[in-house]
Amino acid sequence: MAKKVLQAATALFPVPIVMVTTIEDGRPNIITLAWVGTVCSNPPMLSISVRPATYSHGLLTRTREFVVNIPGAGLLKEMDMCGMVSGRDTDKFALTGLTAMPASQVQAPLIAECPVNIECRVKEIIHLGLHDLFIGEILAVQVDDAVLDEKGRVDAAKVAPVAFAGSSYWAVGECLGDMGFSRRSQV
Amino acid sequence: MAKKVLQAATALFPVPIVMVTTIEDGRPNIITLAWVGTVCSNPPMLSISVRPATYSHGLLTRTREFVVNIPGAGLLKEMDMCGMVSGRDTDKFALTGLTAMPASQVQAPLIAECPVNIECRVKEIIHLGLHDLFIGEILAVQVDDAVLDEKGRVDAAKVAPVAFAGSSYWAVGECLGDMGFSRRSQV
Repeated sequence: MAKKVLQAATALFPVPIVMVTTIEDGRPNIITLAWVGTVCSNPPMLSISVRPATYSHGLLTRTREFVVNIPGAGLLKEMDMCGMVSGRDTDKFALTGLTAMPASQVQAPLIAECPVNIECRVKEIIHLGLHDLFIGEILAVQVDDAVLDEKGRVDAAKVAPVAFAGSSYWAVGECLGDMGFSRRSQV
Repeated sequence: MAKKVLQAATALFPVPIVMVTTIEDGRPNIITLAWVGTVCSNPPMLSISVRPATYSHGLLTRTREFVVNIPGAGLLKEMDMCGMVSGRDTDKFALTGLTAMPASQVQAPLIAECPVNIECRVKEIIHLGLHDLFIGEILAVQVDDAVLDEKGRVDAAKVAPVAFAGSSYWAVGECLGDMGFSRRSQV
């Protein structure tokens, strides 16, 4: 296997791509982010990385609340649009036609059309460089009935999830196996 | 859209699933992790979350170096195996037949069979709860010639990347569009 050494860069993939909502003075905003990840199982936490130059950065810093909205592939255009304009001069709910819906634990709204919505409170802000890392404690998860399986768990296949790699959006398709399958297949 | 409020949990998906290598006293180890993500574009950084109970946690804390190895779908069984046993009592390179290969900037080895390898130095360790968050500064990226496009960039489609959602592995399939496509389609 011939390897080529490339310059240091953000080479991890596939990563999630989500729409993060905030609110201040009754004015909700949306930002599309891919530099996000789960960081702790218990207490459940995720992180989002946001550039200080963005409108959302100020909202997050001041309100210390946000919602991570996971879109299905049917919302690709709306998600892309929310990554291309600034909330400083654009009402992104009006721009996209998406629906703001009350959350259960935070003031920031859910995006109703996103099948999974994760309500978070900012626990810590870590300055890294071009991005600041916001660690969010997960307070509640709201899910469309339509994407739950018979045991009441989220069925990823019903969401038609989207991943980000390179500078493109990719469909998440076939289930390849469950965690632990190698052990079971050895029996 | 009828929503159901679920208990707070690690609901973000799809997330990456990678094999992280470390080394101490000449003995390399592999751990499979999904709680990983890009956290900063410049300087380029990623984070990996690791439970203090694991063997890798001690190695990471003491050596402060690691490599994130991105597998293609052809390495699914090996990746699953490396998440099921502990490096305390198992040589995972021997178990899986994977090949340790020298990195360019760190002592920890690459997994030769993984088409993308990201060499990192631990910049910060943040205690969160069940998991500790290791922020890694990316020092170099090594890539198989076979997965580069004509411009020398990684072509994700050639990697056959794997995502993690629920407790399952999923194939990343069709490219749905490039970032910014909504703007171009409005012209």
